[in-house]
Amino acid sequence: MELYFHWFDLLGIAVFAATGTLAAWRKQMDGFGVIVLATVTAIGGGTLRDVILDTPVIWLSDNSYFVAIFTAAVLTILWVRKRLLIPNNALQIADAVGLAFFVIMGTQKALDHGASGFVAIMLGTMSGVCGGMIRDVLCREIPLVFRGELYAMTCIFGGLVYVQLLEFEVAKMPAMLAGMIALLALRLAAIRWHLTIPVFGKKGDLR
Amino acid sequence: MELYFHWFDLLGIAVFAATGTLAAWRKQMDGFGVIVLATVTAIGGGTLRDVILDTPVIWLSDNSYFVAIFTAAVLTILWVRKRLLIPNNALQIADAVGLAFFVIMGTQKALDHGASGFVAIMLGTMSGVCGGMIRDVLCREIPLVFRGELYAMTCIFGGLVYVQLLEFEVAKMPAMLAGMIALLALRLAAIRWHLTIPVFGKKGDLR
Amino acid sequence: MELYFHWFDLLGIAVFAATGTLAAWRKQMDGFGVIVLATVTAIGGGTLRDVILDTPVIWLSDNSYFVAIFTAAVLTILWVRKRLLIPNNALQIADAVGLAFFVIMGTQKALDHGASGFVAIMLGTMSGVCGGMIRDVLCREIPLVFRGELYAMTCIFGGLVYVQLLEFEVAKMPAMLAGMIALLALRLAAIRWHLTIPVFGKKGDLR
Repeated sequence: MELYFHWFDLLGIAVFAATGTLAAWRKQMDGFGVIVLATVTAIGGGTLRDVILDTPVIWLSDNSYFVAIFTAAVLTILWVRKRLLIPNNALQIADAVGLAFFVIMGTQKALDHGASGFVAIMLGTMSGVCGGMIRDVLCREIPLVFRGELYAMTCIFGGLVYVQLLEFEVAKMPAMLAGMIALLALRLAAIRWHLTIPVFGKKGDLR
Repeated sequence: MELYFHWFDLLGIAVFAATGTLAAWRKQMDGFGVIVLATVTAIGGGTLRDVILDTPVIWLSDNSYFVAIFTAAVLTILWVRKRLLIPNNALQIADAVGLAFFVIMGTQKALDHGASGFVAIMLGTMSGVCGGMIRDVLCREIPLVFRGELYAMTCIFGGLVYVQLLEFEVAKMPAMLAGMIALLALRLAAIRWHLTIPVFGKKGDLR
Repeated sequence: MELYFHWFDLLGIAVFAATGTLAAWRKQMDGFGVIVLATVTAIGGGTLRDVILDTPVIWLSDNSYFVAIFTAAVLTILWVRKRLLIPNNALQIADAVGLAFFVIMGTQKALDHGASGFVAIMLGTMSGVCGGMIRDVLCREIPLVFRGELYAMTCIFGGLVYVQLLEFEVAKMPAMLAGMIALLALRLAAIRWHLTIPVFGKKGDLR
């Protein structure tokens, strides 16, 4: 089980790195920009969570994250340079798997450090979405997660399922799996049927 | 006294959350964006201060902050959806009260952790203004506090009064109150008489 | 030797503060904006490194950094107000000296905290470039280091030389000097002959 977890983790890291690479490519950044955006997207959320929890930042002592990031960035650049289209659905589905893993693992880590269920869900969601938010800020974009897609809400939903099952005294491992599956199912449904959440704000003031 | 402090704290949190909600609404963000901007504006400055001081981040163990943030965000959305105008002065005055509290409490916390008076004033000001700065960056705006209003300077002034009084061996509680009142008075004067500080820079290069 | 180091450090801080001041001036910010941008550019990268390493942030207990920052900011403002042009080359060369120092010292600090050579180079580069990245984000610009200039890559090169020499069992001090000189030489060459690294991305999509 733990072994699968590590592979899911690296899959999530790689997919997040690929979205960072694509963002850098769209903005015509140089090789350093590509590496920074890939890295920040992949580990930004987890780093922020670890700093706030005051626990050692995980990539300080594990280089396998960077192997996944660099591999993903290089493959993505090679791919787009050949003008091959990345099948958007494949990327979104892989992203959903990575997201499910990140969020539930982040929630678990926060609980391990004594956070309340509510704060743990918040930190888990932060693990999943803050990397992408920093990516968008560095690209001078308003973060994508604020624009109405059912993305961050699926993180909160998955975290809620997990924490709630723990409170019903379900064992840790099945509760984690259930949380991941709940998150993944809602996210895949959102991709498949283009589910959205309402956008607030006055009309015509969008910049 | 301590009890009043907690209520001022929650008032400040709520007002900052309301300004974050208004910013998200102006940018037509979704419900998640509203919650993130409200939260970041309210607790971003204090979180940054705590991380730099390497002291436990306060909201990790106190959910009452989030109750204040969510209540403020929901009330603000209800209010603006009814196309009611928020009396700008009321919001500014409440913001000034919250700011006075945040800055002096932040300065105090830094002093408690052994910072020099100078660094403490800087971290106190950071507590007061960095939440709004992150809000503006996420909205793709140049931070409001850089644009000439007498806002951040009132934080520095209040912190200076407080630290100076401590050096004159005034007791902690009256010194804190005096710092808050000094900050509040200068800020209210700035609102009332539209006091500004000079803006630098070459003409015509503003973007 | 150590004494020289401190002066190089302050030189680097001052030059970085000057570039932050110039950025604030270009965006017509007020006095507070100038101070914030000067400070963030000068100490942002080192602060981020220290927070991630979970080691005390250096400026919490050393005011001499702020003396250097304020002096540099005031001199820069006086200079540009007199419409004197800053000799661009002089600023770039001083920046290169400061950069060489920051990056190698940052790499060293990470090694001291048990980071692997790879992670240490990354944190050293972060010390050198993240201050400027935060400056650009606060100015609503895409960070300059992503735009093709040979800047960040020189940091990675210098860090690599340093770490590699340490592995060949060269003593710490000569290895540090060699790393700094390698970084400085490459950066000066990049300035002199306008060396660039390739920029990725599809044409016409630059915003």
